[in-house]
Amino acid sequence: MDFKQHLTTVEDYPKEGISFIDITTLMQNGEVYRAAINEMANYAKDKEADIVIGPEARGFVVGCPIAYSLEKGFVPVRKKGKLPREVISVDYGLEYGKDSLTIHRDAIKKGQRVLIADDLLATGGTIEATIKMVEELGGIVVGIAFLVELGYLDGRERLNGYEIFSLTTYDQ
Amino acid sequence: MDFKQHLTTVEDYPKEGISFIDITTLMQNGEVYRAAINEMANYAKDKEADIVIGPEARGFVVGCPIAYSLEKGFVPVRKKGKLPREVISVDYGLEYGKDSLTIHRDAIKKGQRVLIADDLLATGGTIEATIKMVEELGGIVVGIAFLVELGYLDGRERLNGYEIFSLTTYDQ
Repeated sequence: MDFKQHLTTVEDYPKEGISFIDITTLMQNGEVYRAAINEMANYAKDKEADIVIGPEARGFVVGCPIAYSLEKGFVPVRKKGKLPREVISVDYGLEYGKDSLTIHRDAIKKGQRVLIADDLLATGGTIEATIKMVEELGGIVVGIAFLVELGYLDGRERLNGYEIFSLTTYDQ
Repeated sequence: MDFKQHLTTVEDYPKEGISFIDITTLMQNGEVYRAAINEMANYAKDKEADIVIGPEARGFVVGCPIAYSLEKGFVPVRKKGKLPREVISVDYGLEYGKDSLTIHRDAIKKGQRVLIADDLLATGGTIEATIKMVEELGGIVVGIAFLVELGYLDGRERLNGYEIFSLTTYDQ
Protein backbone atom coordinates (compact mmCIF):
# COMPACT_ATOMS: atom_id res chain seq x y z
CA MET A 1 0.00 0.00 0.00
CA ASP A 2 1.21 3.52 -0.78
CA PHE A 3 0.90 5.07 2.67
CA LYS A 4 2.46 8.39 1.65
CA GLN A 5 -0.52 9.34 -0.46
CA HIS A 6 -2.59 9.35 2.74
CA LEU A 7 -0.17 11.58 4.66
CA THR A 8 -0.38 15.37 4.33
CA THR A 9 2.59 17.72 4.28
CA VAL A 10 1.77 21.01 6.03
CA GLU A 11 4.32 23.74 5.32
CA ASP A 12 5.49 26.19 8.01
CA TYR A 13 3.93 24.27 10.94
CA PRO A 14 4.47 24.53 13.85
CA LYS A 15 6.85 27.30 12.74
CA GLU A 16 8.28 28.79 9.57
CA GLY A 17 10.56 26.54 7.56
CA ILE A 18 9.25 23.29 9.05
CA SER A 19 7.47 20.81 6.76
CA PHE A 20 5.14 18.98 9.11
CA ILE A 21 3.90 15.50 8.18
CA ASP A 22 0.27 15.22 9.29
CA ILE A 23 -0.75 11.62 10.00
CA THR A 24 -4.40 12.43 10.79
CA THR A 25 -5.43 12.05 7.14
CA LEU A 26 -4.08 8.50 7.21
CA MET A 27 -5.80 7.72 10.50
CA GLN A 28 -9.17 8.99 9.26
CA ASN A 29 -9.19 6.19 6.69
CA GLY A 30 -10.01 2.95 8.52
CA GLU A 31 -8.63 0.59 5.92
CA VAL A 32 -5.33 2.47 5.56
CA TYR A 33 -4.91 3.02 9.32
CA ARG A 34 -5.43 -0.70 9.93
CA ALA A 35 -2.96 -1.69 7.19
CA ALA A 36 -0.33 0.66 8.64
CA ILE A 37 -0.75 -0.71 12.17
CA ASN A 38 -0.66 -4.29 10.87
CA GLU A 39 2.73 -3.74 9.21
CA MET A 40 4.14 -2.20 12.38
CA ALA A 41 2.64 -4.98 14.52
CA ASN A 42 4.14 -7.66 12.26
CA TYR A 43 7.54 -6.10 12.83
CA ALA A 44 6.96 -6.15 16.61
CA LYS A 45 5.88 -9.79 16.40
CA ASP A 46 9.09 -10.74 14.56
CA LYS A 47 11.05 -9.06 17.36
CA GLU A 48 9.10 -11.09 19.96
CA ALA A 49 8.23 -7.98 21.94
CA ASP A 50 6.60 -8.58 25.36
CA ILE A 51 5.26 -5.06 25.72
CA VAL A 52 4.81 -1.86 23.70
CA ILE A 53 5.73 1.63 24.91
CA GLY A 54 5.08 4.99 23.27
CA PRO A 55 5.35 8.72 24.07
CA GLU A 56 2.27 10.95 24.30
CA ALA A 57 0.24 11.85 22.46
CA ARG A 58 0.90 10.60 18.92
CA GLY A 59 2.88 7.60 20.15
CA PHE A 60 -0.41 6.37 21.64
CA VAL A 61 -2.06 6.54 18.22
CA VAL A 62 0.30 3.90 16.83
CA GLY A 63 1.47 2.09 19.99
CA CYS A 64 -1.96 1.31 21.47
CA PRO A 65 -3.41 -0.47 18.42
CA ILE A 66 -0.10 -2.33 17.91
CA ALA A 67 -0.31 -3.57 21.51
CA TYR A 68 -3.98 -4.47 21.07
CA SER A 69 -3.25 -6.34 17.85
CA LEU A 70 -0.53 -8.42 19.56
CA GLU A 71 -2.48 -8.84 22.83
CA LYS A 72 0.40 -7.18 24.66
CA GLY A 73 0.35 -4.43 27.26
CA PHE A 74 0.96 -0.78 26.49
CA VAL A 75 3.05 1.58 28.63
CA PRO A 76 2.56 5.34 28.21
CA VAL A 77 5.50 7.76 28.28
CA ARG A 78 4.17 11.11 29.45
CA LYS A 79 5.22 14.66 30.20
CA LYS A 80 6.11 15.42 33.81
CA GLY A 81 3.11 15.54 36.17
CA LYS A 82 0.78 13.46 33.98
CA LEU A 83 1.34 10.02 35.54
CA PRO A 84 -0.19 9.51 38.98
CA ARG A 85 2.14 6.98 40.62
CA GLU A 86 5.90 6.76 41.23
CA VAL A 87 7.83 7.59 38.07
CA ILE A 88 11.35 7.81 36.74
CA SER A 89 12.08 10.79 34.49
CA VAL A 90 14.62 12.07 31.99
CA ASP A 91 15.19 15.45 30.33
CA TYR A 92 15.34 15.53 26.56
CA GLY A 93 15.76 17.87 23.59
CA LEU A 94 12.98 18.09 21.01
CA GLU A 95 13.02 19.26 17.40
CA TYR A 96 11.28 22.41 18.66
CA GLY A 97 12.34 22.80 22.31
CA LYS A 98 13.12 21.04 25.62
CA ASP A 99 11.03 19.03 28.07
CA SER A 100 11.01 16.19 30.59
CA LEU A 101 9.48 12.71 30.13
CA THR A 102 8.35 10.15 32.69
CA ILE A 103 7.21 6.54 32.98
CA HIS A 104 5.84 4.63 35.93
CA ARG A 105 8.60 2.84 37.81
CA ASP A 106 6.62 -0.44 37.81
CA ALA A 107 5.76 -0.27 34.09
CA ILE A 108 8.68 -2.31 32.75
CA LYS A 109 9.98 -5.48 34.37
CA LYS A 110 13.65 -6.52 34.26
CA GLY A 111 14.39 -8.55 31.13
CA GLN A 112 11.16 -7.61 29.31
CA ARG A 113 11.48 -7.27 25.54
CA VAL A 114 10.20 -3.79 24.73
CA LEU A 115 9.01 -2.39 21.41
CA ILE A 116 9.04 1.42 21.26
CA ALA A 117 6.43 2.92 18.91
CA ASP A 118 5.94 6.49 17.74
CA ASP A 119 4.39 8.29 14.82
CA LEU A 120 7.51 10.08 13.60
CA LEU A 121 11.29 9.86 13.74
CA ALA A 122 12.69 13.39 13.47
CA THR A 123 15.88 14.14 15.45
CA GLY A 124 15.27 11.16 17.75
CA GLY A 125 15.36 13.10 21.04
CA THR A 126 12.10 11.75 22.43
CA ILE A 127 13.00 8.17 21.61
CA GLU A 128 16.55 8.51 22.98
CA ALA A 129 14.97 9.63 26.29
CA THR A 130 12.49 6.74 26.16
CA ILE A 131 15.28 4.20 25.60
CA LYS A 132 17.16 5.57 28.63
CA MET A 133 14.14 5.04 30.87
CA VAL A 134 13.41 1.53 29.53
CA GLU A 135 17.02 0.48 30.11
CA GLU A 136 17.16 2.08 33.57
CA LEU A 137 14.28 -0.24 34.50
CA GLY A 138 16.07 -3.27 33.04
CA GLY A 139 14.02 -3.61 29.85
CA ILE A 140 15.56 -4.69 26.53
CA VAL A 141 14.72 -2.48 23.54
CA VAL A 142 14.16 -5.07 20.77
CA GLY A 143 12.99 -2.60 18.14
CA ILE A 144 11.62 0.86 17.41
CA ALA A 145 8.76 1.30 14.95
CA PHE A 146 7.73 4.57 13.27
CA LEU A 147 4.96 5.45 10.88
CA VAL A 148 7.12 8.14 9.30
CA GLU A 149 10.87 8.78 9.23
CA LEU A 150 12.33 12.15 8.26
CA GLY A 151 15.55 10.71 6.89
CA TYR A 152 17.19 14.10 6.40
CA LEU A 153 17.18 14.85 10.16
CA ASP A 154 19.51 11.91 10.91
CA GLY A 155 17.52 10.60 13.89
CA ARG A 156 18.63 7.10 12.89
CA GLU A 157 22.26 8.00 13.64
CA ARG A 158 21.32 9.28 17.08
CA LEU A 159 19.64 5.91 17.76
CA ASN A 160 22.70 4.02 16.51
CA GLY A 161 22.83 0.42 17.73
CA TYR A 162 19.04 -0.03 17.85
CA GLU A 163 16.86 -1.72 15.25
CA ILE A 164 14.57 0.75 13.51
CA PHE A 165 11.55 0.09 11.33
CA SER A 166 9.87 2.92 9.41
CA LEU A 167 6.72 2.45 7.38
CA THR A 168 7.51 5.49 5.20
CA THR A 169 10.59 7.67 4.79
CA TYR A 170 10.98 11.24 3.54
CA ASP A 171 14.49 11.96 2.29
CA GLN A 172 14.08 15.71 1.84
CA MET B 1 -13.85 -10.13 33.50
CA ASP B 2 -13.45 -8.03 36.65
CA PHE B 3 -11.78 -4.97 35.16
CA LYS B 4 -11.82 -2.99 38.41
CA GLN B 5 -9.20 -5.20 40.00
CA HIS B 6 -6.78 -4.01 37.28
CA LEU B 7 -7.48 -0.30 37.88
CA THR B 8 -5.64 1.59 40.61
CA THR B 9 -7.14 4.31 42.79
CA VAL B 10 -4.59 7.02 43.58
CA GLU B 11 -5.70 9.32 46.40
CA ASP B 12 -5.07 13.10 46.34
CA TYR B 13 -4.02 13.21 42.66
CA PRO B 14 -3.81 15.56 40.84
CA LYS B 15 -4.82 17.52 43.95
CA GLU B 16 -5.99 16.93 47.50
CA GLY B 17 -9.38 15.31 47.87
CA ILE B 18 -9.46 13.80 44.37
CA SER B 19 -9.50 10.00 44.01
CA PHE B 20 -7.84 9.43 40.64
CA ILE B 21 -8.54 6.20 38.75
CA ASP B 22 -5.30 5.13 37.08
CA ILE B 23 -5.94 3.02 33.95
CA THR B 24 -2.25 2.34 33.23
CA THR B 25 -2.22 -0.79 35.40
CA LEU B 26 -5.03 -2.20 33.23
CA MET B 27 -3.23 -1.23 30.01
CA GLN B 28 0.03 -2.88 31.09
CA ASN B 29 -1.73 -6.25 31.08
CA GLY B 30 -2.15 -7.28 27.43
CA GLU B 31 -4.94 -9.77 28.00
CA VAL B 32 -7.01 -7.42 30.15
CA TYR B 33 -6.40 -4.39 27.90
CA ARG B 34 -7.51 -6.38 24.86
CA ALA B 35 -10.65 -7.67 26.63
CA ALA B 36 -11.58 -4.12 27.68
CA ILE B 37 -11.17 -2.76 24.16
CA ASN B 38 -13.13 -5.68 22.71
CA GLU B 39 -16.13 -4.91 24.91
CA MET B 40 -16.04 -1.25 23.94
CA ALA B 41 -15.60 -2.14 20.25
CA ASN B 42 -18.57 -4.53 20.39
CA TYR B 43 -20.70 -1.67 21.67
CA ALA B 44 -19.48 0.56 18.81
CA LYS B 45 -20.26 -2.21 16.32
CA ASP B 46 -23.82 -2.52 17.63
CA LYS B 47 -24.22 1.24 17.13
CA GLU B 48 -22.97 0.90 13.52
CA ALA B 49 -20.39 3.63 14.00
CA ASP B 50 -18.59 4.83 10.84
CA ILE B 51 -15.75 6.51 12.67
CA VAL B 52 -14.28 6.83 16.18
CA ILE B 53 -13.25 10.10 17.82
CA GLY B 54 -11.46 10.69 21.12
CA PRO B 55 -9.83 13.52 23.09
CA GLU B 56 -6.11 13.57 23.83
CA ALA B 57 -4.28 11.92 25.35
CA ARG B 58 -6.11 9.14 27.19
CA GLY B 59 -8.97 9.11 24.67
CA PHE B 60 -6.38 7.88 22.15
CA VAL B 61 -5.54 4.95 24.40
CA VAL B 62 -9.06 3.55 24.09
CA GLY B 63 -10.29 5.13 20.83
CA CYS B 64 -7.39 4.09 18.59
CA PRO B 65 -7.53 0.35 19.31
CA ILE B 66 -11.35 0.43 19.09
CA ALA B 67 -11.05 2.01 15.62
CA TYR B 68 -8.36 -0.50 14.63
CA SER B 69 -10.48 -3.40 15.83
CA LEU B 70 -13.47 -2.24 13.74
CA GLU B 71 -11.33 -1.19 10.72
CA LYS B 72 -12.70 2.34 11.08
CA GLY B 73 -10.91 5.67 11.03
CA PHE B 74 -9.91 7.56 14.16
CA VAL B 75 -10.23 11.34 14.59
CA PRO B 76 -8.16 13.02 17.32
CA VAL B 77 -9.58 15.85 19.46
CA ARG B 78 -6.67 17.97 20.60
CA LYS B 79 -5.80 21.03 22.64
CA LYS B 80 -5.54 24.31 20.72
CA GLY B 81 -2.43 24.58 18.54
CA LYS B 82 -1.78 20.84 18.28
CA LEU B 83 -3.53 20.12 14.95
CA PRO B 84 -1.77 21.41 11.85
CA ARG B 85 -4.63 22.11 9.44
CA GLU B 86 -7.88 24.11 9.57
CA VAL B 87 -9.79 23.37 12.79
CA ILE B 88 -12.99 24.22 14.57
CA SER B 89 -12.71 24.78 18.31
CA VAL B 90 -14.80 25.03 21.45
CA ASP B 91 -14.07 26.16 25.02
CA TYR B 92 -14.89 23.75 27.82
CA GLY B 93 -14.72 23.34 31.59
CA LEU B 94 -12.71 20.48 33.05
CA GLU B 95 -12.92 18.76 36.41
CA TYR B 96 -9.71 20.64 37.29
CA GLY B 97 -9.75 23.81 35.12
CA LYS B 98 -10.60 25.35 31.74
CA ASP B 99 -9.25 24.83 28.22
CA SER B 100 -10.06 24.84 24.52
CA LEU B 101 -10.41 21.80 22.22
CA THR B 102 -10.12 21.49 18.44
CA ILE B 103 -10.72 19.05 15.59
CA HIS B 104 -9.84 19.29 11.93
CA ARG B 105 -12.69 20.75 9.92
CA ASP B 106 -12.48 17.93 7.33
CA ALA B 107 -12.37 15.15 9.96
CA ILE B 108 -16.10 14.40 10.13
CA LYS B 109 -18.37 14.22 7.08
CA LYS B 110 -22.04 15.22 7.19
CA GLY B 111 -24.22 12.28 8.22
CA GLN B 112 -21.35 10.13 9.53
CA ARG B 113 -22.19 7.94 12.52
CA VAL B 114 -19.65 8.86 15.19
CA LEU B 115 -18.61 6.92 18.28
CA ILE B 116 -16.92 9.05 20.94
CA ALA B 117 -14.43 7.16 23.13
CA ASP B 118 -12.59 8.25 26.26
CA ASP B 119 -10.98 6.64 29.27
CA LEU B 120 -13.10 8.30 31.94
CA LEU B 121 -16.46 10.01 32.42
CA ALA B 122 -16.09 12.53 35.25
CA THR B 123 -18.14 15.75 34.96
CA GLY B 124 -18.55 15.26 31.19
CA GLY B 125 -17.09 18.64 30.14
CA THR B 126 -14.60 17.28 27.60
CA ILE B 127 -17.20 15.06 25.97
CA GLU B 128 -19.84 17.79 25.89
CA ALA B 129 -17.33 19.93 23.97
CA THR B 130 -16.52 17.03 21.65
CA ILE B 131 -20.22 16.45 20.90
CA LYS B 132 -20.64 20.13 20.00
CA MET B 133 -17.84 19.95 17.45
CA VAL B 134 -19.05 16.66 15.92
CA GLU B 135 -22.55 18.09 15.50
CA GLU B 136 -21.28 21.39 14.12
CA LEU B 137 -19.66 19.36 11.34
CA GLY B 138 -22.90 17.42 10.70
CA GLY B 139 -21.88 14.15 12.37
CA ILE B 140 -24.35 12.00 14.33
CA VAL B 141 -23.19 10.90 17.79
CA VAL B 142 -24.43 7.29 17.95
CA GLY B 143 -22.79 6.43 21.26
CA ILE B 144 -20.17 7.34 23.83
CA ALA B 145 -17.95 4.65 25.33
CA PHE B 146 -15.89 4.96 28.52
CA LEU B 147 -13.54 2.61 30.29
CA VAL B 148 -14.50 4.13 33.66
CA GLU B 149 -17.46 6.16 34.86
CA LEU B 150 -17.37 8.17 38.09
CA GLY B 151 -21.10 7.89 38.71
CA TYR B 152 -21.05 10.29 41.66
CA LEU B 153 -19.97 13.24 39.47
CA ASP B 154 -23.19 13.10 37.42
CA GLY B 155 -21.49 13.40 34.03
CA ARG B 156 -24.24 11.20 32.62
CA GLU B 157 -26.83 13.89 33.37
CA ARG B 158 -24.76 16.51 31.59
CA LEU B 159 -24.73 14.23 28.51
CA ASN B 160 -28.49 13.69 28.75
CA GLY B 161 -30.02 12.45 25.49
CA TYR B 162 -26.92 10.53 24.37
CA GLU B 163 -26.31 6.79 24.67
CA ILE B 164 -23.53 6.03 27.13
CA PHE B 165 -21.64 2.80 27.66
CA SER B 166 -19.25 2.39 30.61
CA LEU B 167 -17.13 -0.67 31.14
CA THR B 168 -16.83 0.01 34.89
CA THR B 169 -18.58 2.43 37.24
CA TYR B 170 -17.52 3.85 40.61
CA ASP B 171 -20.47 5.06 42.67
CA GLN B 172 -18.50 6.76 45.43
